[in-house]
Amino acid sequence: MLSIISVGVNNMDELTKPNALGTEGFIFNQTMLRIKDPEISLDFYVNKLGMTLIKKLDFPEMEFSLFFLGYLRDFDEEVPNDPVKRAEYAFSQKAMLELTHNWGTETDDSFSYHDGNSDPRGFGHIGITVPDVYAASKRFEEQNIEFVKKPDDGSMKGLAFIKDPDGYWIEILSARGSSQF
Amino acid sequence: MLSIISVGVNNMDELTKPNALGTEGFIFNQTMLRIKDPEISLDFYVNKLGMTLIKKLDFPEMEFSLFFLGYLRDFDEEVPNDPVKRAEYAFSQKAMLELTHNWGTETDDSFSYHDGNSDPRGFGHIGITVPDVYAASKRFEEQNIEFVKKPDDGSMKGLAFIKDPDGYWIEILSARGSSQF
Repeated sequence: MLSIISVGVNNMDELTKPNALGTEGFIFNQTMLRIKDPEISLDFYVNKLGMTLIKKLDFPEMEFSLFFLGYLRDFDEEVPNDPVKRAEYAFSQKAMLELTHNWGTETDDSFSYHDGNSDPRGFGHIGITVPDVYAASKRFEEQNIEFVKKPDDGSMKGLAFIKDPDGYWIEILSARGSSQF
Repeated sequence: MLSIISVGVNNMDELTKPNALGTEGFIFNQTMLRIKDPEISLDFYVNKLGMTLIKKLDFPEMEFSLFFLGYLRDFDEEVPNDPVKRAEYAFSQKAMLELTHNWGTETDDSFSYHDGNSDPRGFGHIGITVPDVYAASKRFEEQNIEFVKKPDDGSMKGLAFIKDPDGYWIEILSARGSSQF
């Protein structure tokens, strides 16, 4: 059993256990990205990246829709069919991707969102861990997905970056051998 | 057992199972945000939001550091002590927060990152599911954390948004009753 100690912020290093009474049960549930066209983005995240669309919420008065996607542990696991319980399921999972569609952007040719990697910078990327970066990248190439970095580009071998339909960067990494980066 | 069917993108609705051979074992591992000052951000995410700092990677030649944080299922669970195995552990988890610190920004008073919620927009927020939004918000108030929206502001009751030290929005939500939004 590893000894996890709580230290002052000036000495923070791995592992730093929170000294945070009152945060028990907190879950990092979601990352929200705005998307221009849900048909294109859902095709990308479901059929190309392999996520499952778990919940869709429409807000007609405010003219936007939310899509919640994630990797289910098992495609046959029980997901509640009841709409309320389905939402509770989605919001109690780790690592949901929330896509926000403000209605109408999909038909505005001049419209695009900012990916955060040119000025003004901020958000960088989401990252998907895969069993084999080269095999995954070969498949993405066959699907004509745009790359920022192929696995053998640059000095960081075995690590790729692709772009989603809005230009957001997605790191494709492997858990094994990752400490070299 | 729910029947999960694969449908065309034009008919995509909940639940849509991926038709994506080759994505088995994919994990939504990380969301990366650039931060100005790691001492301030680590204090926030560890001591105020209750995450554990699991892995730190320094890149002296390129003058940046990466910090990987997440909610461990159990603070006493076994996390490998070996640096390589620790990295493999971090990269095989769901829902890691990756903070990128480009060295020197912390001493540049005029420097700040863009939160994605003013033009040019893109990234929206990360979201933390908590057992009780009101209790969590009361605690955040006591810690002088800035709110974008308190739980009873606006029409969406029981849902809050706070700001992290760089101004990134963090939704504070509850899994129960969430379908009303």
